[in-house]
Amino acid sequence: MRTQVGIVGAGPAGLLLSHLLHLHGISSVILENRCRHYVEERIRAGVLEQGTVDLLNDTGLGERMRREGLVHHGIELSFSRRRHRIDLSELTGGKAITVYGQHEVVKDLIAARLAAGGEILFEVADVAVHDLETDRPRITFSQDGKPQELVCDFIAGCDGFHGVCRPSIPEGVLTTYERVYPFGWLGILAHVAPSSEELIYAHHERGFALHSMRSHEITRLYVQCDPHDDIKNWPDERIWQELHLRLENDTNWKLAEGPVMQKGITPMRSFVVEPMQYGRLFLAGDAAHIVPPTGAKGMNLAVADVRLLSRALDAFYVRGNRELLAAYSATCLRRIWKAQRFSWWMTSMLHRFDHHSPFEQRVQLAELDYVTGSRAAATSLAENYVGLPFED
Amino acid sequence: MRTQVGIVGAGPAGLLLSHLLHLHGISSVILENRCRHYVEERIRAGVLEQGTVDLLNDTGLGERMRREGLVHHGIELSFSRRRHRIDLSELTGGKAITVYGQHEVVKDLIAARLAAGGEILFEVADVAVHDLETDRPRITFSQDGKPQELVCDFIAGCDGFHGVCRPSIPEGVLTTYERVYPFGWLGILAHVAPSSEELIYAHHERGFALHSMRSHEITRLYVQCDPHDDIKNWPDERIWQELHLRLENDTNWKLAEGPVMQKGITPMRSFVVEPMQYGRLFLAGDAAHIVPPTGAKGMNLAVADVRLLSRALDAFYVRGNRELLAAYSATCLRRIWKAQRFSWWMTSMLHRFDHHSPFEQRVQLAELDYVTGSRAAATSLAENYVGLPFED
Repeated sequence: MRTQVGIVGAGPAGLLLSHLLHLHGISSVILENRCRHYVEERIRAGVLEQGTVDLLNDTGLGERMRREGLVHHGIELSFSRRRHRIDLSELTGGKAITVYGQHEVVKDLIAARLAAGGEILFEVADVAVHDLETDRPRITFSQDGKPQELVCDFIAGCDGFHGVCRPSIPEGVLTTYERVYPFGWLGILAHVAPSSEELIYAHHERGFALHSMRSHEITRLYVQCDPHDDIKNWPDERIWQELHLRLENDTNWKLAEGPVMQKGITPMRSFVVEPMQYGRLFLAGDAAHIVPPTGAKGMNLAVADVRLLSRALDAFYVRGNRELLAAYSATCLRRIWKAQRFSWWMTSMLHRFDHHSPFEQRVQLAELDYVTGSRAAATSLAENYVGLPFED
Repeated sequence: MRTQVGIVGAGPAGLLLSHLLHLHGISSVILENRCRHYVEERIRAGVLEQGTVDLLNDTGLGERMRREGLVHHGIELSFSRRRHRIDLSELTGGKAITVYGQHEVVKDLIAARLAAGGEILFEVADVAVHDLETDRPRITFSQDGKPQELVCDFIAGCDGFHGVCRPSIPEGVLTTYERVYPFGWLGILAHVAPSSEELIYAHHERGFALHSMRSHEITRLYVQCDPHDDIKNWPDERIWQELHLRLENDTNWKLAEGPVMQKGITPMRSFVVEPMQYGRLFLAGDAAHIVPPTGAKGMNLAVADVRLLSRALDAFYVRGNRELLAAYSATCLRRIWKAQRFSWWMTSMLHRFDHHSPFEQRVQLAELDYVTGSRAAATSLAENYVGLPFED
């Protein structure tokens, strides 16, 4: 088998890259070790930046998102027994976020790729990448038990944090930057209409909580917890109790309960590798960087990566320009580090840190007081939340 | 002896309070254990916020400051081998800072108080405060070896971090918030014209450095150092070498050297006590809070405290209104904590922390990259640097 760009992973990064390359007339094949149903139902992030929405719309992927996505013009911060709205749109010249699940984006992308004759090989096994230093890198894998080989010009490693691409880069090439947080998020999906139209980020002495949603019927809720805790220790009543305490926060607003459809605990980490390229292998999305979910940046960073990679590959194929490919890693990383900073800052401002001194606790509250009282500081939060401009 | 407000300490807080009370027709006596010459020559902060400048001008203290002070409309940040100017005035609707030494403000205040017949008792000893819970608190002291007593309606503790007032408050009343930083500033005064018209805050892998000035002839320079280091380990040549490396930062700009007139090492801490009042004793300035010098907030916070205290005392004497006095501590603290947050943030962004992980180092550089690239973030820095609005 032969293609121009071999893509490992059919998450949002790999699928969108394949779609964008197709629009540039560049061929690609996606290899995915899970089945289609699995990747289409995998619940992940759900907040799209304005730039992500614009890109999906501009490339013909926005039809269902425009119909089903929930456009939010603000978010709320809850702390010190009060609520404050950050008016994202007013502060950013009309930008907004769209609540639309990552798995919905994945469904739209798969449908679009298949409709255009795109090749996505699901349920392949034993994926390995080779000859990365040459201009004919190869991907070997097995399909229905038979060994296969895909010869490419380039390989895109879009296979996530636990994927095979990043570990295939020789030792000593990558520098790893990492922070593990001393807490996780216990998340539930509840079959009940959201109790508020917008997201509520709650700082509380018992720990952080978040009120979010999937749709007009499904609420997504999180409470900060011990990352090593067992979900068995959290019967539904205990989760609701914590959610009421932290989100209602002595205000008059009430959180509505509903049947819990799904629950789980996610650890939180910040992670970056530099560079995001080795020879003809380019990493994109979670394969190269992880953010804590507080800033809702994960999928949006993947979109920014593959947007840039598709433009760099287009420049290479159409104009013989290798500069954009050579600059891919540095260009991505500049924006990634700003998103890491924002995600770290939102996480630091909103969570309970058991090791915090009383001074640090007061500074945290002063930060919330300042951010909600200063137009400049609120604008800084807002411009990051709706998404900083893409780098080119 | 009898007065309305007994003031302990003839630093900027005590002197300005006495001046403001005088303008309200309220009598005060200042007790100071140092001599006049000492307090007039004590080198401390040198950057006045716009609100401080306005207050000094509005209360008739600005004549020499307008003539000799250096008005700065911007500051520079140096990092990653580049320089970036924060245009304070453009970002804050025309506000600026004025470089004018704290000891110059003190000289102007002493002159104004004495010209108006104000009572400042220098070189008193054994100062102690009593009967704070009553409406006739007393200050005892000795003058020329003779015991004296000053009976007051109120006492203002303006006697700094090491003063007697704060420790006179019974145990259990105050809560202390504190952070000690793992570095200090080695500062010099050099007899040479400043090498740049504006302040330069330099982030460097060897540690922070600051280029500041006292006048057109005197440069003030700092390098981050071990807070426990001995100044004897820092011959002038070593100081200049570090200054060149950190401030020139591989740019073409050159730092001019000159004779070192004074040098010393200052530790850095953040410190707040709550509340700032006990009975009829009100704390103001360094007696209640210390900031690291990075944000240039120390004296400006003292000015904000005594401005509020003078208005609250005026409300009490003129209108019998006790509410402003009762709210003094909470009102001050809201702005103080924002200034603490800003000073902590500037310090964290610009200094080298030996315990920082590579991730934290990258986030620090991303912060500088973001602050200098985002108008909102630069505005946030600028509005804090020129001074947040006074609280009333």
